[in-house]
Amino acid sequence: MNGFEQYLGSCQRRIDSYLDQQLNNSLSQLNRLYDAMRYSVTGGGKRIRPVLTYASCEVFGTAESAVDVAAAAVELIHAYSLIHDDLPAMDDDDLRRGQPTCHRAFDEATAILAGDGLQALAFEWISQADHWQPATRLRMTAVLARAAGPQGMVGGQAIDLGAVGRQLDQNQLEDMHQRKTGALIRASVQLGALASEQADEQQLAALDTYARCVGLAFQVQDDILDVEGSTEVIGKNHGADAARGKPTFPALLGLEQAHRLARSLQDQAIAALAGFDQRADRLRQLARYIVERQF
Amino acid sequence: MNGFEQYLGSCQRRIDSYLDQQLNNSLSQLNRLYDAMRYSVTGGGKRIRPVLTYASCEVFGTAESAVDVAAAAVELIHAYSLIHDDLPAMDDDDLRRGQPTCHRAFDEATAILAGDGLQALAFEWISQADHWQPATRLRMTAVLARAAGPQGMVGGQAIDLGAVGRQLDQNQLEDMHQRKTGALIRASVQLGALASEQADEQQLAALDTYARCVGLAFQVQDDILDVEGSTEVIGKNHGADAARGKPTFPALLGLEQAHRLARSLQDQAIAALAGFDQRADRLRQLARYIVERQF
Repeated sequence: MNGFEQYLGSCQRRIDSYLDQQLNNSLSQLNRLYDAMRYSVTGGGKRIRPVLTYASCEVFGTAESAVDVAAAAVELIHAYSLIHDDLPAMDDDDLRRGQPTCHRAFDEATAILAGDGLQALAFEWISQADHWQPATRLRMTAVLARAAGPQGMVGGQAIDLGAVGRQLDQNQLEDMHQRKTGALIRASVQLGALASEQADEQQLAALDTYARCVGLAFQVQDDILDVEGSTEVIGKNHGADAARGKPTFPALLGLEQAHRLARSLQDQAIAALAGFDQRADRLRQLARYIVERQF
Repeated sequence: MNGFEQYLGSCQRRIDSYLDQQLNNSLSQLNRLYDAMRYSVTGGGKRIRPVLTYASCEVFGTAESAVDVAAAAVELIHAYSLIHDDLPAMDDDDLRRGQPTCHRAFDEATAILAGDGLQALAFEWISQADHWQPATRLRMTAVLARAAGPQGMVGGQAIDLGAVGRQLDQNQLEDMHQRKTGALIRASVQLGALASEQADEQQLAALDTYARCVGLAFQVQDDILDVEGSTEVIGKNHGADAARGKPTFPALLGLEQAHRLARSLQDQAIAALAGFDQRADRLRQLARYIVERQF
């Protein structure tokens, strides 16, 4: 295992342990709800968003312990969105990360409520993290709420649902993904930088350019893996998006051009970090990892 | 029409107009999502929560224009919870306020997303309302997130779903309602007081006692109306809760005792306001209105 894989593993263990500690409940009537939230939040996954939050904060030399809440909050929002996306009325998925989806393991009503509860918790945790200045927490709340809301992730999902079976051009496809997955990836990076309480506006803007490129690259690579990968490795049904008539980058551009787009976005992401020293190396490695991963 | 009814009407028009102005969208691909959010938010209703927010702020002589965002945020959370509660996997209701429920007027996926989007918007609006101090907005965010989340409204809904067909005692029934509807009613009153930026901790506590009593009284009266009211007046199917085997106060205590409980809670609510002058009269009138309303 190389140093970067060790770093990934250590971030994953750190956020898993933090979420496991924080998501607890002492009221037996709420056990089923909390079980469903914990099932969805601690069910593995690459933890790309929390890793981006940790790596973004590292640019300013801030200790990971000062960033845990922010990393956890973005993961709560991500986990809630997966629960709701998987519902029968949405993508109707039975498997997520090779395990039954939340509404399959529990029931639909519990899954809806678990998602709703996780979204509220994200804002509760940030607002109460009093090691940050009030102004810092407020800006984090605003960034995360906007990323999660109707102009961000929820809007992207709505556009995606409306686009099934329709032809989108590259701009429309990119806009949809910038909302659906890009907005929360950008928020992950912004929250990490804000958690340092040292980033100036120019640095925040540079990191946002990085995050925009990485977020889109992530989606392009996801689409590529949906075509190239096997069910066993990616943990969901192979070719599932194409089978549903969902627009994808390989379908629009061809596989070769899609690979090229992913690599170009990776280069742009790394170029946006030119003003930062070696403390931004984790972000640089992450940009490469996101495009080169096979799962 | 008496003075209090005029006040109610003016608060309702004020919040309707504010929500109508703020919930706008310029991106055609998001029209369906915004239509569903607007449909649910501007579809009438008593606006009890915003009215409580305005009336709570009036205790400190603060202008209504300084409270609009807080009143709107609690209504967004309320509207989202109704959309999700009405879903087929939850209460499976076709009618809300005499109109088709959101998933009936649109579709299930859009209804899930509209609810998700409204929750995020509530936190976005509060965090960005820069006429309040950062510390004020943060406390509002924390209060609202906790009220909406798994220990509050979402938890109450989960307990309610688990209680269908089961016997609850009065303490369990009260706990369930204190979460399911009480938590957001308490948040409505707290947010109004916080919006004044003048309330001390003792005053916040007195107002919270008021809100606890009013919130429970509201639910007891709702249960009574479900038994006594007609479908035409209350806008949902008469006896619907009892038919589902949901535990209610009249079923548990008998109708006469349920009426007595509602009046006792009204008295306790008004007693909690003893330390406030005539500027708390709207809150006093609201406590009476909540118990005496017939719809």
